[in-house]
Amino acid sequence: MTGKPDDGRTSVAVAAGAAVGQSVDVLEARSRVDGTIDFALNAEIPHMTHARLARSPYAHARILSIDVSAAEKLPGVVAVLTAADFERPDAPARHHGPVVRDQPVVCGTKVRFAGDPVAAVAAETEEIAAAALGLIEVVYDELPKVTTVEEALAGGAPLVHDRPPEARDRGYSDIKLAGAGGNICTRFQLRRGDVEAALAEAEVVVDRTYFSPAVQHVTMEPHVVLATYDGRKRELTVLSSTQGPFAVRDALSEMFGLPSSAVRVVVPPLGGGYGAKTYAKYEPITAALAWKAGRPVKLVLPRDEEFISITKHEATIRMRTGATRDGRLVARDVEVFFNGGAYADISPRLIKNGGYSCVGPYDIPHVRVDSYAVYTNLPPAGAYRGYGVSQAAWAYEQQMDELAELLGMDPVELRKRNLLTKGQDFATGETMHEAHWHQLLDKAAAAVEWSPDSKAARSAEGRLSGKGVAVILKSTITPSTAHAAVRLDADGAMQVFTSAVEMGQGAHTVLAQLAADAVGIPVERVHVTTPDTWYTPYDQTTSSSRTTRAMGGAVTKAARVVRERLRHLASELLEADSGDLVVADGLVSVAGVPSRSLSVAEVCYRTRTGSISGDGEVVTSGGLDPETGQGVASDHWHQGAASAEVEIDPATGKVYVRKLYAVAHAGRVINPKLARLQMHGSALFGMSHALYEELIYDNGVLTNPNLSEYSIVAMGDLPARLEVELLEEPGEAQIHGLGETVLPPVIAALGNAVANAAGVRVRRLPMTPERVLDAMEGT
Amino acid sequence: MTGKPDDGRTSVAVAAGAAVGQSVDVLEARSRVDGTIDFALNAEIPHMTHARLARSPYAHARILSIDVSAAEKLPGVVAVLTAADFERPDAPARHHGPVVRDQPVVCGTKVRFAGDPVAAVAAETEEIAAAALGLIEVVYDELPKVTTVEEALAGGAPLVHDRPPEARDRGYSDIKLAGAGGNICTRFQLRRGDVEAALAEAEVVVDRTYFSPAVQHVTMEPHVVLATYDGRKRELTVLSSTQGPFAVRDALSEMFGLPSSAVRVVVPPLGGGYGAKTYAKYEPITAALAWKAGRPVKLVLPRDEEFISITKHEATIRMRTGATRDGRLVARDVEVFFNGGAYADISPRLIKNGGYSCVGPYDIPHVRVDSYAVYTNLPPAGAYRGYGVSQAAWAYEQQMDELAELLGMDPVELRKRNLLTKGQDFATGETMHEAHWHQLLDKAAAAVEWSPDSKAARSAEGRLSGKGVAVILKSTITPSTAHAAVRLDADGAMQVFTSAVEMGQGAHTVLAQLAADAVGIPVERVHVTTPDTWYTPYDQTTSSSRTTRAMGGAVTKAARVVRERLRHLASELLEADSGDLVVADGLVSVAGVPSRSLSVAEVCYRTRTGSISGDGEVVTSGGLDPETGQGVASDHWHQGAASAEVEIDPATGKVYVRKLYAVAHAGRVINPKLARLQMHGSALFGMSHALYEELIYDNGVLTNPNLSEYSIVAMGDLPARLEVELLEEPGEAQIHGLGETVLPPVIAALGNAVANAAGVRVRRLPMTPERVLDAMEGT
Repeated sequence: MTGKPDDGRTSVAVAAGAAVGQSVDVLEARSRVDGTIDFALNAEIPHMTHARLARSPYAHARILSIDVSAAEKLPGVVAVLTAADFERPDAPARHHGPVVRDQPVVCGTKVRFAGDPVAAVAAETEEIAAAALGLIEVVYDELPKVTTVEEALAGGAPLVHDRPPEARDRGYSDIKLAGAGGNICTRFQLRRGDVEAALAEAEVVVDRTYFSPAVQHVTMEPHVVLATYDGRKRELTVLSSTQGPFAVRDALSEMFGLPSSAVRVVVPPLGGGYGAKTYAKYEPITAALAWKAGRPVKLVLPRDEEFISITKHEATIRMRTGATRDGRLVARDVEVFFNGGAYADISPRLIKNGGYSCVGPYDIPHVRVDSYAVYTNLPPAGAYRGYGVSQAAWAYEQQMDELAELLGMDPVELRKRNLLTKGQDFATGETMHEAHWHQLLDKAAAAVEWSPDSKAARSAEGRLSGKGVAVILKSTITPSTAHAAVRLDADGAMQVFTSAVEMGQGAHTVLAQLAADAVGIPVERVHVTTPDTWYTPYDQTTSSSRTTRAMGGAVTKAARVVRERLRHLASELLEADSGDLVVADGLVSVAGVPSRSLSVAEVCYRTRTGSISGDGEVVTSGGLDPETGQGVASDHWHQGAASAEVEIDPATGKVYVRKLYAVAHAGRVINPKLARLQMHGSALFGMSHALYEELIYDNGVLTNPNLSEYSIVAMGDLPARLEVELLEEPGEAQIHGLGETVLPPVIAALGNAVANAAGVRVRRLPMTPERVLDAMEGT
Repeated sequence: MTGKPDDGRTSVAVAAGAAVGQSVDVLEARSRVDGTIDFALNAEIPHMTHARLARSPYAHARILSIDVSAAEKLPGVVAVLTAADFERPDAPARHHGPVVRDQPVVCGTKVRFAGDPVAAVAAETEEIAAAALGLIEVVYDELPKVTTVEEALAGGAPLVHDRPPEARDRGYSDIKLAGAGGNICTRFQLRRGDVEAALAEAEVVVDRTYFSPAVQHVTMEPHVVLATYDGRKRELTVLSSTQGPFAVRDALSEMFGLPSSAVRVVVPPLGGGYGAKTYAKYEPITAALAWKAGRPVKLVLPRDEEFISITKHEATIRMRTGATRDGRLVARDVEVFFNGGAYADISPRLIKNGGYSCVGPYDIPHVRVDSYAVYTNLPPAGAYRGYGVSQAAWAYEQQMDELAELLGMDPVELRKRNLLTKGQDFATGETMHEAHWHQLLDKAAAAVEWSPDSKAARSAEGRLSGKGVAVILKSTITPSTAHAAVRLDADGAMQVFTSAVEMGQGAHTVLAQLAADAVGIPVERVHVTTPDTWYTPYDQTTSSSRTTRAMGGAVTKAARVVRERLRHLASELLEADSGDLVVADGLVSVAGVPSRSLSVAEVCYRTRTGSISGDGEVVTSGGLDPETGQGVASDHWHQGAASAEVEIDPATGKVYVRKLYAVAHAGRVINPKLARLQMHGSALFGMSHALYEELIYDNGVLTNPNLSEYSIVAMGDLPARLEVELLEEPGEAQIHGLGETVLPPVIAALGNAVANAAGVRVRRLPMTPERVLDAMEGT
């Protein structure tokens, strides 16, 4: 099904049941542990070659010449791809991009970041391919570069792209390209009320600038692509560790000029995604190399290249908030600059989220947001777990504490005076149908025994201790489409057909639980298929915490169709109205007469039914006016809060997390264990961003592309107490995603705790010992 | 969808359109010619091993010992499978069979035909596997054997199976096992009226016995299976050249004790099937070997082993027909003995078709048929293009001519006096809703300028010439279930999801045509998926000429759902009622206002619709009472006729076919070229059976397992004139299968032509020069 949902509903109510609400183990848990899992990394096919990429050492340079002849002659080298290959009349397009086609598959005339690919080698072994890289001679003419937003927007700045970007012509009318120019890729603006007047009249105004650095996803599994191009059949088959099977299919279909049905994208389970694997990434270059080589090509990105593959946007957010003396917010004016790096990737969409999210979960009558995607000569930035939201929340939840301080008010109290409540409108003009922020904030405050007097102290060992809270709102991708199909086979085994990607988050497990209960069979009998665009139904993307709700809804609808058909078949055999039949634990029985029952297998065999199938969909609609930011930003809103207790060693500036608490509105919890694990992951990611992670560039070249010099949270850093909580109200039937919800408030709560402990605020992430010490020393 | 069809209809009406009715080339024609087609034969996967089978040299023997130790030690041998392996507690079941589980995967205590597998070897190369066969030492104790039906049914005959067969417990209540015993596997009986009384009162009675030999399918592509058993995940994946993906899946799931969802059967295009590849054949032994080896195993059956893989049933039919002097049939009494070989395979079903088909397309008030599946020590017999029907038609259409001769009546006239007409009941009690036999017979007679006076002549060169006609009815598998799904992607490309197997017959091409027209997009934009039981919807089987009608109907229904959804989406954009929209050539337009139109892609992009999906099904019901043969044998009836003109060289007995004509009731023809090609193939198969083909056994051992000594029709044998005709009445909207319809009447028409030319009848096929000469010489 597609288009408008037949019943006008964009979600599906579920109740706890035999499987739903149970902490079922991740279906493929054992294979993840014993190594038998079919990661793309482990894939082999006959005649496969191995790829390595030659990359620019310069952040910005003109390519004067590329000589690959020596590399091509190296025994074992099968093909070397350069921009020259795209001159062939049968060549694929040389540029791609999910919104703006600005990214070359391999660079021809210019490189735009240190790491931009200039050639790709396919060889019999990865070692030969690596050796061939050393034989490729590229002559560069280095160009002046821009690496920061300030540099990029300065007058007379060198241009990353000589021409302004052109949007892809398909369905992107909500992207504002008109504002683009110079190094501005795209902009987004939100307008509500009269900000200038309101700020002029405000009794207090806080005006600060907050900074989030670029960080990397560091998925356990790197990007892996295995591509086969069949030139005679004009078919392209790609095995990829992607979160977006259909987005990749569509990008390749466009690039190769093939109908979507001639491009097959198969997606085995992933070893983590976090947004790094949304949209086409290394599929275009691997597919083009396979096209050139005439043999299958497998690319496994080395860890150091992972660090320049895609990043979380560096953001600089200038935020002014006006309020009354008694703590009513009256206006907020925000300029958000997202450093998008050399190519647009999904920046044009992300800056919208990053823009309106700056309003926070607050009722503010006058709002102005200008959000910019800025091109620089850094690796491209893209989606990262709750994209745009954590940068925004870092800014607005610091600012709320700063405003409270200015007002001499308890920051929790200040928030509570302004939190959105059910039925109020958000700054986009959309009504909040659910509002749990008061509850969430209360829980977060209680978790650290918050009181205005206890927010800072000095421990017996002389450490400075502090507490902090934060509360956030987060949108989910809207509009959105999820289709699913379910097939109950005659032996009672069930197949769930979905293109939702399993990447360790347990998506396939919760879909199996939902399907099992919606039909009435044991969850052990459910098998969830590997996404394969040749076979599995359309799904927009596995991201934005949307899978359990959207795909879960589609699967539930499909499974309910199956249950109805099963009851209809059984009604003749059991001589009862199908309405009087219940299906549970694989048995169809007459309600109240359990002895009158038949197994699914008996029903199928006796009616000679080979299988029972059904399909279902969940479609949401919405969108924002590109000039005013008014409309529907999100089908529903993710809501979370966090609190933290930290200690700072005044001698070193090092921050110790004594307690970290995070809570998310969960709606109906399908699998408590998996939900809590997602919360744990999200909270620790937030802590890692708050305290450790930062990509450091020198002259535009990344200096810490490894896990010795780039720090992520480690076992030794874990909070002394880590608590997560799922807000599931009695009778709740709606599923809410929660995989990303607590990452943003954890960063902000840690920021507020550090500020309370240190007595001074670090507005630049991460809050490293050096920065904390510098701030405390007033430098 | 499943179970009862929602609209109570078991077929779908279609009209000629942009694609339907057009002679579209077979979609994969080019790849079939240039060798790029993905036959299972060409499949390779990493770590694959190659299999060969050790087979019994004796038709019947006890196995005293099997020693595979020397074979196991041969370098490059990976595993050797014997019955002993099935003693392991985790072993799969050692027997399989689609109706009766009587066939050992490998023999343990007894071999039952010359060729029965006793061991299977997996090795690094096929050559090593072949060499290993020579190192396997089996000690046999030869047993008395039965190779003919007469031997098998004689008193005190050796038993092929010591115990009577037990039916599988699933859904086979219509198989009569009660009559089994001794070497009778199963029996079927049809009872109508009082045959004994009617025959006693009949004015004339013909009583003759007719014989059809065992023949082989000789598909271009042999049986190929590539199996991988993942013991850690307990998953079995099989790539197979099978006509029945789901039948194979179910057989393996049962054998390995796995849920159906843990068995994946993928079916690439086949190089011919003709029934030889229905139900599990070499999948069990290859999968068991893969289980033992712990590595993928590929088996490609050598041509000589193809000849002992499965055969068309040898049949001996004693038929008595009584009539009035003026040529009204009053009674028919038939005993049919099908030589099923060593294992039941699908004999229990086939003997039903072969039984009731003996009545022919005639109105006979008193009928008795006893049809038997008989075990012998020959290779197992199974499905062969129109199973059971050609043997029956050979008998009854010879007998009609013999009766006409006895009555001194024109055999065409005799038939016309008795042909079933619309609304009459067949001997099973079911009403014939369509009856085209008069028309078909008239066409066949006209094609050879039939007249009673011209049926025999002597040519100028002294050759004996003769004409013959025949007319037949043929059932199709009933009940039957076909599911399909269709997905229209946003770029206007369409996927048809079906488990119908493409085996050169053009199934996927006609399904694409039906889908294209039912949505309204060009057929070039349609892609039909490769069957894969993990993904594609359930289909019962690709056999019995059912695919174009049953699966075509399911695809049409699914595509119509897609069209409705597309019109619904477009109605908002075009500001028109969806009922006023037409879809054609990929454009949705307002009826009568072609300028108000949008392409499929525009509709999808503007509504942000990723894809539009729909599903459909065709389910038929029926079945016969096992005691009386009363009920519904066939959802609808295939109807055909043929005529032939032959010349016999009186010196050699060789038959030259001057003209061969075949006509089938076609209903709505989807693709005239492909329909005619199927008719050509079917007619030439019939000619080949009539004149050339016969498996010859000596002491139970096949003596002609090769294409030098086993003759199939060759280019030099082609009729001087070969004409086929499709009976498509104006306004016809129902699809009829026709892939098997004219094989039976061609055999019979040639038999009658030879009899007319020779002046004497050869009742034993094939009508070789020796047999014709013997008959003419009265020996």
